[in-house]
Amino acid sequence: MSDVTTPLVGVVMGSTSDWPTMSKAVEVLERFEVPHEAQVVSAHRMPDEMFAYAETAAERGLRAIIAGAGGAAHLPGMLSAKTLVPVLGVPAPSRHLSGHDSLLSIVQMPAGIPTATFAIGEAGATNAALFAVAMLAADDPAMAQALQRYRDERRAQAATSTLPPA
Amino acid sequence: MSDVTTPLVGVVMGSTSDWPTMSKAVEVLERFEVPHEAQVVSAHRMPDEMFAYAETAAERGLRAIIAGAGGAAHLPGMLSAKTLVPVLGVPAPSRHLSGHDSLLSIVQMPAGIPTATFAIGEAGATNAALFAVAMLAADDPAMAQALQRYRDERRAQAATSTLPPA
Amino acid sequence: MSDVTTPLVGVVMGSTSDWPTMSKAVEVLERFEVPHEAQVVSAHRMPDEMFAYAETAAERGLRAIIAGAGGAAHLPGMLSAKTLVPVLGVPAPSRHLSGHDSLLSIVQMPAGIPTATFAIGEAGATNAALFAVAMLAADDPAMAQALQRYRDERRAQAATSTLPPA
Amino acid sequence: MSDVTTPLVGVVMGSTSDWPTMSKAVEVLERFEVPHEAQVVSAHRMPDEMFAYAETAAERGLRAIIAGAGGAAHLPGMLSAKTLVPVLGVPAPSRHLSGHDSLLSIVQMPAGIPTATFAIGEAGATNAALFAVAMLAADDPAMAQALQRYRDERRAQAATSTLPPA
Amino acid sequence: MSDVTTPLVGVVMGSTSDWPTMSKAVEVLERFEVPHEAQVVSAHRMPDEMFAYAETAAERGLRAIIAGAGGAAHLPGMLSAKTLVPVLGVPAPSRHLSGHDSLLSIVQMPAGIPTATFAIGEAGATNAALFAVAMLAADDPAMAQALQRYRDERRAQAATSTLPPA
Amino acid sequence: MSDVTTPLVGVVMGSTSDWPTMSKAVEVLERFEVPHEAQVVSAHRMPDEMFAYAETAAERGLRAIIAGAGGAAHLPGMLSAKTLVPVLGVPAPSRHLSGHDSLLSIVQMPAGIPTATFAIGEAGATNAALFAVAMLAADDPAMAQALQRYRDERRAQAATSTLPPA
Amino acid sequence: MSDVTTPLVGVVMGSTSDWPTMSKAVEVLERFEVPHEAQVVSAHRMPDEMFAYAETAAERGLRAIIAGAGGAAHLPGMLSAKTLVPVLGVPAPSRHLSGHDSLLSIVQMPAGIPTATFAIGEAGATNAALFAVAMLAADDPAMAQALQRYRDERRAQAATSTLPPA
Amino acid sequence: MSDVTTPLVGVVMGSTSDWPTMSKAVEVLERFEVPHEAQVVSAHRMPDEMFAYAETAAERGLRAIIAGAGGAAHLPGMLSAKTLVPVLGVPAPSRHLSGHDSLLSIVQMPAGIPTATFAIGEAGATNAALFAVAMLAADDPAMAQALQRYRDERRAQAATSTLPPA
Repeated sequence: MSDVTTPLVGVVMGSTSDWPTMSKAVEVLERFEVPHEAQVVSAHRMPDEMFAYAETAAERGLRAIIAGAGGAAHLPGMLSAKTLVPVLGVPAPSRHLSGHDSLLSIVQMPAGIPTATFAIGEAGATNAALFAVAMLAADDPAMAQALQRYRDERRAQAATSTLPPA
Repeated sequence: MSDVTTPLVGVVMGSTSDWPTMSKAVEVLERFEVPHEAQVVSAHRMPDEMFAYAETAAERGLRAIIAGAGGAAHLPGMLSAKTLVPVLGVPAPSRHLSGHDSLLSIVQMPAGIPTATFAIGEAGATNAALFAVAMLAADDPAMAQALQRYRDERRAQAATSTLPPA
Repeated sequence: MSDVTTPLVGVVMGSTSDWPTMSKAVEVLERFEVPHEAQVVSAHRMPDEMFAYAETAAERGLRAIIAGAGGAAHLPGMLSAKTLVPVLGVPAPSRHLSGHDSLLSIVQMPAGIPTATFAIGEAGATNAALFAVAMLAADDPAMAQALQRYRDERRAQAATSTLPPA
Repeated sequence: MSDVTTPLVGVVMGSTSDWPTMSKAVEVLERFEVPHEAQVVSAHRMPDEMFAYAETAAERGLRAIIAGAGGAAHLPGMLSAKTLVPVLGVPAPSRHLSGHDSLLSIVQMPAGIPTATFAIGEAGATNAALFAVAMLAADDPAMAQALQRYRDERRAQAATSTLPPA
Repeated sequence: MSDVTTPLVGVVMGSTSDWPTMSKAVEVLERFEVPHEAQVVSAHRMPDEMFAYAETAAERGLRAIIAGAGGAAHLPGMLSAKTLVPVLGVPAPSRHLSGHDSLLSIVQMPAGIPTATFAIGEAGATNAALFAVAMLAADDPAMAQALQRYRDERRAQAATSTLPPA
Repeated sequence: MSDVTTPLVGVVMGSTSDWPTMSKAVEVLERFEVPHEAQVVSAHRMPDEMFAYAETAAERGLRAIIAGAGGAAHLPGMLSAKTLVPVLGVPAPSRHLSGHDSLLSIVQMPAGIPTATFAIGEAGATNAALFAVAMLAADDPAMAQALQRYRDERRAQAATSTLPPA
Repeated sequence: MSDVTTPLVGVVMGSTSDWPTMSKAVEVLERFEVPHEAQVVSAHRMPDEMFAYAETAAERGLRAIIAGAGGAAHLPGMLSAKTLVPVLGVPAPSRHLSGHDSLLSIVQMPAGIPTATFAIGEAGATNAALFAVAMLAADDPAMAQALQRYRDERRAQAATSTLPPA
Repeated sequence: MSDVTTPLVGVVMGSTSDWPTMSKAVEVLERFEVPHEAQVVSAHRMPDEMFAYAETAAERGLRAIIAGAGGAAHLPGMLSAKTLVPVLGVPAPSRHLSGHDSLLSIVQMPAGIPTATFAIGEAGATNAALFAVAMLAADDPAMAQALQRYRDERRAQAATSTLPPA
């Protein structure tokens, strides 16, 4: 999951059950060749490891952390509380409330500790990774060009899509 | 706020703004003469102190922790992740979503890390404290009697309440 | 379902249809070898039996009651009204509203009559049982150690989980 | 609050704080000269009295019970479980969730135990009483005529209402 | 669907797609041998027939109308506006919002025009019919006895239900 | 409220209490000098008048009906069921549920009977009237120009708005 | 998808994944032989094309635009901001929130820029097209007659529908 | 509102009515001496200016855009669609739905076009600005230190806060 080069983006999630969602973030990072790592860091089952992850994030060179969690989703906010590295939160779909609980648990952070939040589920995971790419593109013209190409391709794809008969 | 005797119940909250809610818990503990302490322990602003609070809770003799927080309310669940002392969560009313976000952030904990959750706002704070009293009453017949008297008084109060003319 | 020894925890539910959810609580109690009993006690179909259950709970030695119900879920709250034994409520998933109705019906108790509420569905049933274990562990060092081992195992399990390729 | 004649309709509520809502039901019963009674019967604080109320309702001659409660509103459903006298439930506005919790706690009854539910708040209290009047009107032509006059008056009132300039 | 005897209860619904829900009401009426009729009366597609249905309900001898509808569910409320015969509304599950829209469209009637509302879906249909039976039982001791037997049977059924191993 | 010329747009509402909302629609119609009428037509209290209003709408020359209602808001949908004249529904804010019930009651119409729905409250009333103006502008170049001027003015107003110091 | 004659109604959607919903609008337009066009115009992926679509809508002869989108559904409102041609918005069902997000994103437009909103999903697509037909029918007596026939047929279909045995 | 130096962060909002919320973002930027600009850019009233703002954002040197809007809040998402500069969305409280509509309209963006979303209201505006500061701090050690001091101060402030007597 991780590159030999120093990872710039960390992708963490509360459980392997979040992988179908969070793998979409990794796919984007791979496409843009962003050095990254991905692992389970559970806020509730591994609180100390979670704190250690956040405490070392800056010194390890992470420029952004993408954190996915569902239900009472505390991982993104607690990472945010422990590091100045920008945290991008992805609400995972939850079994009974469809991720509505995940969304509110992540986005409604109190003033002082920001967590950037994205859409529930795969779209959010994809977009969190694209947002990380855009952050990195500020210092990396090649990345910026790659991002522009990605958008151009998607625009072209949408513009040429055809509809079947009604 | 705290007794000279060793506290049995800790009341913590994310911010002084939660005090109007959480003071209801303290009122109950005072009524039942439960040794307790009350303080601000912010999950997001004081994460290390929060972990330290949880890590020392058992050895300090706490039998229960009552934790109130609003919005993306991570305090009760993170304390639960760090201690085996039972945590009683109180969803504080939030400014825009009336505590609905607080409730879901506290109650929807994943399997493995329980947080007992009570109603939004003052009723929840009162009840969390009454629940702590009931837990303590298991070993304390005088406490059990006091709790029964409390119920009896409230029953009597309800049963004799009168309604004004329509 | 019940041990020959006196049960310490009662698991009750409104209907056999709640069993897939509530069996998760029993599994936890069995793992921790907590003497327990499990049965259907419907607030709406068996109100007198429900009251009798609550009235005799303390004298029968129950230290906690885990009560699951769905929809207009009145069982946990009504048991709470009839006994000082701590009641742990589990909102069962409901057919049309996914347990959101069950959650609000259980958690929004008025000041004076506490019901500890857990997550909707199986996670909540598991956690209610773990919470009961934690309550019992206050007087039972072996139980406390077993609970710590449970957490350690789950932490290890999470920490060593691996993600498949994206 | 009660007539010297045998009450046909009982109006009960969980707390005196529900009176501003429930007094609207009493106003309607008074207008239609329906013998009635009104009192606090708290499901949670007075469970035995509540059961007694329900158990004696039929023999005391009640033809309907109007029950108002807020939050985890168990009163209407528990009365329904204990009597065959039709129960009309009124969701009282709740402090934080505006009565949405009350509504779901009352209306989502399981198959087998019906509770007729009306709108949140004063409109619901008014309508529960009008519904009770309509039930009584089945056997009481004068009541039926009075109800028709009530409707006619309100229709006329609406039809002749005028709007101020924009 | 209808008895040769004059129907006492009319069961109407907005569409044949509501039949899986509303057939539960008919099953109850058949069990209690209540003369009834059942048909599609769409508020939106058959507004004049709907008004005619309501206008003739009393003279045709209907003692209650059970009306099921989904989404913007106007049928129960509009029938209520056109007749003094008690209307019992059943929110049908809706395709995208699970009947939450149906529930609010039926229950939130303005003061003056009552519609008794029951739970979303089959439970609500069953209960609306049981409520109609209870209304009829006021004048019909045999019906009252049958209703008591129904409850007793269900109580026995619940009380003797057994749970499989966890 | 009405012009001497034949009204092209009818503004109706369930109650005078909706006037603070619906007067915004009338203000727009007056600004654009659209002949109009405004009156209370209650679906629940004046069902026959409501049907008559809808039945005569086309022959009276109405090109659109703007209908506002709150709670179980049946007026827009029932008018739609009775006329082919386009109906524009405005969800009025409701006392306890803030118009969320009104919105769902209006917008979730079944396939076959359209009601165009606008935002909750004053914004919705303003926009329903602007939409009616846009419909009329299809045949009326002066109206189209006036509508364009309205937009241009608002654009200029927004573009030149200044912010006070933080 | 488009007629050789100049389209009067444009059907646009954010993605081909909206086609199962939006094809219902096209089916209605085809039934009424309304010249139309249908294509993907994504607000987020093709913003310039979207603006161009809106800017040329009037001159190209469009009398209405039916726009479907899901989630953060910005297409209907942004088209409304760029043209005076009436825009009819259809909330597409969304993966996790069932279209509730789509509905609020479309209907809650600020005062000044109207978007007519219809029900979530296929019913809304059908109704948006029927509404467009009704708009066109104002100038087209044959269309008005066809619309009346459509209603009559559906009324007949509903009135003659039969229910299977319970 | 803007510095003489080239702005690095643009703060935009749909209306001057959003200023009480969005001024919190400006206060943070001023505290951290981040060159910035603030202005009204309405997606619905000024769509062309909005597009021009986004199109020139990168070349003008903006490193982030903080966009606040309420209701059908399209501003953040449409800016995101038109620029690769990271957009930070702030859901403004809305009049009737408390910002729940704003939140869903901003956060539920489709895969491909990311908008980082923050909490409803002032907390979200503060946090969006802090997030922008954190982004800038990646290249600016002094900014990083200032951000650390800000956190340290708030931690100290929380840790030393005292609670009044209950």
